[in-house]
Amino acid sequence: MARDIDDLPKLEANHMALTPLWFLERAATVHPTRTAVVHGSVHYTWQQTYQRCRRLASALSKRNIGAGSTVATIAPNVPAMYEAHFGIPMAGAVLNTVNIRLNASTIAFLLGHSKSAIVMVDQEFFPLAENALKILAEKDSHYNPPLLIVIADESCDPKSLKDALGKGAIEYDKFLESGDPDFAWKPPEDEWQSIALGYTSGTTASPKGVVLSHRGAYLMALSCAMIWGLNEGAIYLWTLPMFHCNGWCYPWSLAALCGTNICLRQVTAKAVYSAIANQGVTHFCAAPVVLNTIVNAPNEETILPLPRVVHVNTAGAAPPPSVLFAMSEKGFRVTHTYGLSETYGPSTVCAWKPEWDSLPPIKQARLNARQGVRYIGLEGLEVVDTKTMKPVPADGKTMGEIVMRGNLVMKGYLKNPEANKEAFANGWFHSGDLAVKHPDGYIEIKDRSKDIIISGGENISSLEVENVLYTHPAVYEVSVVAREDERWGESPCAFVTLKPGMEKSSEGSLAEDIIKFCRSKMPAYWVPKSVVFGPLPKTATGKIQKHVLRAKAKEMGPVKKSRL
Amino acid sequence: MARDIDDLPKLEANHMALTPLWFLERAATVHPTRTAVVHGSVHYTWQQTYQRCRRLASALSKRNIGAGSTVATIAPNVPAMYEAHFGIPMAGAVLNTVNIRLNASTIAFLLGHSKSAIVMVDQEFFPLAENALKILAEKDSHYNPPLLIVIADESCDPKSLKDALGKGAIEYDKFLESGDPDFAWKPPEDEWQSIALGYTSGTTASPKGVVLSHRGAYLMALSCAMIWGLNEGAIYLWTLPMFHCNGWCYPWSLAALCGTNICLRQVTAKAVYSAIANQGVTHFCAAPVVLNTIVNAPNEETILPLPRVVHVNTAGAAPPPSVLFAMSEKGFRVTHTYGLSETYGPSTVCAWKPEWDSLPPIKQARLNARQGVRYIGLEGLEVVDTKTMKPVPADGKTMGEIVMRGNLVMKGYLKNPEANKEAFANGWFHSGDLAVKHPDGYIEIKDRSKDIIISGGENISSLEVENVLYTHPAVYEVSVVAREDERWGESPCAFVTLKPGMEKSSEGSLAEDIIKFCRSKMPAYWVPKSVVFGPLPKTATGKIQKHVLRAKAKEMGPVKKSRL
Repeated sequence: MARDIDDLPKLEANHMALTPLWFLERAATVHPTRTAVVHGSVHYTWQQTYQRCRRLASALSKRNIGAGSTVATIAPNVPAMYEAHFGIPMAGAVLNTVNIRLNASTIAFLLGHSKSAIVMVDQEFFPLAENALKILAEKDSHYNPPLLIVIADESCDPKSLKDALGKGAIEYDKFLESGDPDFAWKPPEDEWQSIALGYTSGTTASPKGVVLSHRGAYLMALSCAMIWGLNEGAIYLWTLPMFHCNGWCYPWSLAALCGTNICLRQVTAKAVYSAIANQGVTHFCAAPVVLNTIVNAPNEETILPLPRVVHVNTAGAAPPPSVLFAMSEKGFRVTHTYGLSETYGPSTVCAWKPEWDSLPPIKQARLNARQGVRYIGLEGLEVVDTKTMKPVPADGKTMGEIVMRGNLVMKGYLKNPEANKEAFANGWFHSGDLAVKHPDGYIEIKDRSKDIIISGGENISSLEVENVLYTHPAVYEVSVVAREDERWGESPCAFVTLKPGMEKSSEGSLAEDIIKFCRSKMPAYWVPKSVVFGPLPKTATGKIQKHVLRAKAKEMGPVKKSRL
Repeated sequence: MARDIDDLPKLEANHMALTPLWFLERAATVHPTRTAVVHGSVHYTWQQTYQRCRRLASALSKRNIGAGSTVATIAPNVPAMYEAHFGIPMAGAVLNTVNIRLNASTIAFLLGHSKSAIVMVDQEFFPLAENALKILAEKDSHYNPPLLIVIADESCDPKSLKDALGKGAIEYDKFLESGDPDFAWKPPEDEWQSIALGYTSGTTASPKGVVLSHRGAYLMALSCAMIWGLNEGAIYLWTLPMFHCNGWCYPWSLAALCGTNICLRQVTAKAVYSAIANQGVTHFCAAPVVLNTIVNAPNEETILPLPRVVHVNTAGAAPPPSVLFAMSEKGFRVTHTYGLSETYGPSTVCAWKPEWDSLPPIKQARLNARQGVRYIGLEGLEVVDTKTMKPVPADGKTMGEIVMRGNLVMKGYLKNPEANKEAFANGWFHSGDLAVKHPDGYIEIKDRSKDIIISGGENISSLEVENVLYTHPAVYEVSVVAREDERWGESPCAFVTLKPGMEKSSEGSLAEDIIKFCRSKMPAYWVPKSVVFGPLPKTATGKIQKHVLRAKAKEMGPVKKSRL
């Protein structure tokens, strides 16, 4: 069929590859003198940032880094990390952001698997990188050592920089000097080209390399700005690590909005409040564990009341309603989102409804603790029975798996066809998270499928038990996992960190008190049979590592029948 | 070269055609009970709007309207127009929005050229459509008359509806009833598929049909929201006709933002102020001529001071600084943008800089009257010497043509290879507008290339002469065109509408006064040699029709040498 109306070709003038890289060039044109990146006494304007990124791209090109190459970073939220999000793809290469809290042998695996040809490493983490490369060299006889670039930071011990330079690393700023500030970078020819690679924590198997495209990064950068009402000129505090899922694509959003990036090497409640007071911060992102730190900060570290409304985007784990409540009481406006590395960061939002404004705050917090509805840029979101792929009824009760599809889903895992087959089964991306759908269409996570506790044949959501425990006045942090149980198969075991000032000596009676508290607030079979006190193991992004706790619970042996 | 990192296929789960249609489905899911569209006493929620659009798509499909079909609308800003932006493409067809102020023979050309199989026409414009189809039938012996759907509006004379129904037209709401509210519409398989068609005014030749894609409409809907800080839940007043360049893609933005559309059949200052007072309007778009009406409205039609900040996006013609100044004095926050039908609406914005806040208001208005910098979603914008395609220097003086490229440029003109060749010469889209680039990188239009007046070999920007004339206390509206001149070849001729209350009897002395005023404010050769009083001819979107005035100036004959 002749279809005149569709029959017009794509031309150089009307079809270009979507890429977030143009945002930087635009920011440098529109607001050349506006501050783009701040780190301590270091300030770069958008023009300077653009020039530094072009230098980086140029210097990489001179080293034959281009299409198909991977460049790794091992660094906290410093300006070089921001620049890496532009400079590396402007050379045509892929940015591989390595989690700085991984151990040397895992990093060795990542650098080997990704074939990273250059490693940009912050001076503090140079020894870690060095160890990783040593392990890699031992394992692989064909190993071709990557070029090491060390990022200097005046807030670090000068010794570590000296050591790195002594061992042949090039200083990042020297490397930039070898590049052309007017380098004619080329956008990708194909928007499906990869822009970034990030490895999942790999708690059970080898880490999986999540590959993201220019197209997806562009769309996510716009989506995550719009969903949050992040507007032109926002002042954004980098609490969320950029090495975690490219900081949910916000590096690229900030360029699109010509905003200002406030870097933060280490996240403490004091540092967050201080940045709000002194740097004009309007927005930041944080995992619930960081919010917990902020709401529990001692008075002298806070600057309450806040000098302006500060918008917070939280995701990474389901936030307990009690923490959301405490945040809103302090004047933060919390947008709750949910997603995974595989979805470029968050891809659902608990969209606030004006009709909630008049509800009691604790009810608001409970509504807002749900994961909500899909992002503007995500085309499909469902909670399904994985066997039939049919959506569960919107009854707030029937559990199913959260599945997504659309342009905010990763390209796939690098060199891992098995994992890709599983993740993309039946035309959807499978999150592995179990949820219900409420009558208002909002979804709520009940658990990771592997975190569900099955007691006497009944499913218990570890998350729901935790949410109750968070309302106990002595509980600072809590994580509930399955412990073997002679009578019930499994039963809940609570690992608890107490609030400062709660005496260790009272732990015995506190455990009893906590169990009693639970009995009054939840079905009997949900009540933890065991309560263990101590610090909780966490990932780099503040997620509690349940697999470590499950191992601990296993060491403890089964709950004996006699105890009942 | 093996490139593992790029070698991951596009799948159903991670790559879908970009289309703004998902925004509607999302709005209906997230805010089903929120008001989506208001027209007088008619209110539709997002759920209702979605159902009505699915009914429309379903009813069209039953009539064999699908891929490759075109459906035309001839209607002002009523709910059916909003629904057409979703329901027609949800059937796979292309929306052809016809300007209601065109004459029957032009509309006949449009309907024939676009092969529109169905015409949705507002009851008031039914006779116009009927005449157009009569002309079309006379011209084309193979003519297959389209199905006529008449849109009823209770604010119109019931007679026109009765007439239309008597002549066999189907009422729009009846047509919807024949469709399924749960129709399983299909998104486009290819995002390059056409979504809309709109004809340029065609002042000199046949109108040209601008074809837009789903991809472009999606990207523009996000871009034009972000550039304006149009956030979730905005209340948007439809002053800008949706038939003009799909209302700059805002119908789709409003769905993405789950906002509220306030329809307006006829734009008057009183209606605008009343909607601000009674409907909570936060945003509207308008051509400068509408702003002029608003600032010159008699006191009793205004509701000043405004109950809230009202954001205005103006484009369509270069706004005189004096009008921008008056708007900001009344409390409107004006975002000045510029673009063409060929760029999905505006694609440059005069991005406001905080450092302008402290400047005197008239200086602010002058800075803000410039066309500015490119949209977030536009990849390329330049002012070039068309012969060499080299950018002009950023000196604020050297004129060149504005050219654009990227994803916010149309697919092309329908069945018009000649026009496409010209418009897309040398890898850029040629706007036909002449501009300078200022040292701060902002562009400023000096004139349409055909509006430039060449007097004694010197270029005169008709726009700059107009901007001065707008500051004369008696001038309401003005347009300056070239008139033949025996001595200088051409000289400026000013057509002026006076403010209400300025006596006609004083026109003779006023003309002299205006010329004297000009002499004191501009170079001698810019000063109009002739001043003509009377109403100005305008297009449907309020653009002054210079070609009509040029014809009038021609009728007047040349300016005689003796007059000097």
